[in-house]
Amino acid sequence: MTEIKLGIAGLGTVAQGVLALIRRNGALMAQRSGVTLRVVRIASRREKPGVDLMGAQFSTDLDDLVSDPDVDVILELIGGEGVALDLIRRALASNTPVVTANKAVLAAHGNELMSGPGKQQLRFEASVAGAIPIIQGMSGGLAANRLDSLFGIINGTCNYIFGEMESNGTPFDEVLAEAQRLGYAEADPSFDIDGVDAAHKLTILLALGFTGEYDLSAVHIEGIRHVTVADIQFAKELGYKIKHLGIIQNTAAGVEARVHCALVPSNALLANVNGVMNAVQIISDGAGETLFSGPGAGGEATASAVLSDALALGKQFSTGNGIGVDTQASETTQAPSPAILPMAEVTSANYLRIPTLDQPGVFAQVTQALSEFSISIDAAIQHEASASQPVVDIVLLTNNVVESAMNAALERLQGLDIVAADIVRLRVAPAL
Amino acid sequence: MTEIKLGIAGLGTVAQGVLALIRRNGALMAQRSGVTLRVVRIASRREKPGVDLMGAQFSTDLDDLVSDPDVDVILELIGGEGVALDLIRRALASNTPVVTANKAVLAAHGNELMSGPGKQQLRFEASVAGAIPIIQGMSGGLAANRLDSLFGIINGTCNYIFGEMESNGTPFDEVLAEAQRLGYAEADPSFDIDGVDAAHKLTILLALGFTGEYDLSAVHIEGIRHVTVADIQFAKELGYKIKHLGIIQNTAAGVEARVHCALVPSNALLANVNGVMNAVQIISDGAGETLFSGPGAGGEATASAVLSDALALGKQFSTGNGIGVDTQASETTQAPSPAILPMAEVTSANYLRIPTLDQPGVFAQVTQALSEFSISIDAAIQHEASASQPVVDIVLLTNNVVESAMNAALERLQGLDIVAADIVRLRVAPAL
Repeated sequence: MTEIKLGIAGLGTVAQGVLALIRRNGALMAQRSGVTLRVVRIASRREKPGVDLMGAQFSTDLDDLVSDPDVDVILELIGGEGVALDLIRRALASNTPVVTANKAVLAAHGNELMSGPGKQQLRFEASVAGAIPIIQGMSGGLAANRLDSLFGIINGTCNYIFGEMESNGTPFDEVLAEAQRLGYAEADPSFDIDGVDAAHKLTILLALGFTGEYDLSAVHIEGIRHVTVADIQFAKELGYKIKHLGIIQNTAAGVEARVHCALVPSNALLANVNGVMNAVQIISDGAGETLFSGPGAGGEATASAVLSDALALGKQFSTGNGIGVDTQASETTQAPSPAILPMAEVTSANYLRIPTLDQPGVFAQVTQALSEFSISIDAAIQHEASASQPVVDIVLLTNNVVESAMNAALERLQGLDIVAADIVRLRVAPAL
Repeated sequence: MTEIKLGIAGLGTVAQGVLALIRRNGALMAQRSGVTLRVVRIASRREKPGVDLMGAQFSTDLDDLVSDPDVDVILELIGGEGVALDLIRRALASNTPVVTANKAVLAAHGNELMSGPGKQQLRFEASVAGAIPIIQGMSGGLAANRLDSLFGIINGTCNYIFGEMESNGTPFDEVLAEAQRLGYAEADPSFDIDGVDAAHKLTILLALGFTGEYDLSAVHIEGIRHVTVADIQFAKELGYKIKHLGIIQNTAAGVEARVHCALVPSNALLANVNGVMNAVQIISDGAGETLFSGPGAGGEATASAVLSDALALGKQFSTGNGIGVDTQASETTQAPSPAILPMAEVTSANYLRIPTLDQPGVFAQVTQALSEFSISIDAAIQHEASASQPVVDIVLLTNNVVESAMNAALERLQGLDIVAADIVRLRVAPAL
């Protein structure tokens, strides 16, 4: 039996989940893995009176975690780039392995942290998609494959909002307010609903499976604010669901990396991932289509991933010299790193909802404008106008169009006199 | 860079998939994992002229694999219990790690192989659900959790057959013949469609995650031959899809382990796993509902799992003394092993299709018979009779009933004069 003495940074939801899981399942983990986890020190800005610290020392100073010679492994559960980054740097420099749930710090500083002296001692299963063992899946289970593409529902807030808009027809603003009340969205929701959180996670998946480079700026980022209940209903009529996706595609021209709303065929597995659940689908040359789904957030769900890393480190300790044996860091070094395809060169089919004045010849004007950019139409919906409805939506699915041409066509369309309001444009997910 | 010299037993589809993946992705695997895989010896009853052996020695004698001092790891890709079991035993006894895709040998001899001297050197990711890294997911990703239940679509043949029956209304026999033509079903299909293959896989999942015991006899086994297109359509009307599932539930009364057809709510993720795909959903106390899906069979898909094990062994070799660090075998030892709940004591809601004579009072007689066993009805369908249709199906969903009572009630119902043919009884999957 190997005992691993844990130092925990932070005492928020995830840290409390870690304590709860060790308390409840510590004996079971030891039975199965031969590793006993003991929490010896917890550092946080302030103590939380109701939380059982399981006999650990408590500090308000993070430095105590690094300087305590008793601490074998540090769990960084603070989040953000400030003190968390500093803590990870100092811990790795002093040769203490770190388990982190911090996607922001990896997205911004992954290259530094994965190339420094302690790189083999940094594990980060919990940084992407909560409870889902996707880091292990990519670096372990699929290790023999060339990864061709990845499609991820990696922001539970967006997925919850679309689900509610679909099932109840509730407008975006109301669902968002409800999500905030339920704790599924933050008071300042922009990190989730503008796609930043998903982009952090996609940056990690991109580095791990495709490029070896942590580069947030390589990811094209769009959020969900422009999608209406009408779009969800039109998409359904066309046989699709709208999901906020992270997409990576390894093409001959370069690697696509993008976060935006996408139409997914209603019968695809990914379309049926509902509520706050996350899912990552990976298409690889040997394993084909694999999908991993589960809760993307939550105290114990994230703690499950954190502790899987702690137990993996513990198994390595048990051999006496094994740190880095089953490292996640070394998986990211591929040379040479393939080029990122600029978004302007990405090709997609597109969903367009064009609010037009109800007058003769409108449909012809729209299709004429599109044809000037060599864009053709694969499907169309136009419902009958009514007296109470002076604006009529023309909904189109285009053929595959390169982004730059689509953008130029949209600018042209938006300028037509017959277009009565902002056009909504969503991309269709590449064939799943 | 660590070089692992592989000896391969067998030269069938999976072995050829292994060769293809190493040929195509060997350099990529080395870059990512620091492990180079080299095939040094292949043993098979006969050579296959078209297959590139990648410079390996060829033998028709399996003994050569064990006696060749050059072989670091043996990949057992023969299948079955005869020579394969013998090979695994001898390899482990002589301290050569083995990677196997052989579910039959583990289901029947897992206890022996996992408790012997070489137990830490036996890996078996490919034995369950092909490309899906479910063994790693359970023993690694979910290692901090108590597993509460497992629901698996673990036989692609059954899933393909139900899918075709549903989408085209084609009768079972015709779909089976077509599946045989396409290579999705064997010439003798009973291994798949009578549930034996699924039971082998469930035995491994049961041992790994729940009991620590490999005991095929603990699994209640039913196949799919009794399901008709009518049942699939009635189930759809009730909001369900019919799937052939492996089910494990950890209840206060004992562990349920069963393989049978089950009604799954149409909007559940598992209901949307189509064609020959497999999926395993696990519900655990910390991670909640996680699901892993992917191809359950096929040369390269299975090879992907085989090579993930070979690479994991290679990473352990790279530390000099690491065999057994990240073992799958040691995960299975839990003490004491919880009791298996006998099938007669399992509780399920049930779907009943009762073919009855078209005469007055039939419905009342059926419900009266059920009520004598305290079985009540949650939903019912009875379509109008027609002159051309002298037998009318009464379709019922019961409340939760203990198996022994349901069986007694079925015997009673079947004996009623008004029941015109065999009753079809399917269980409803426990709440997913």
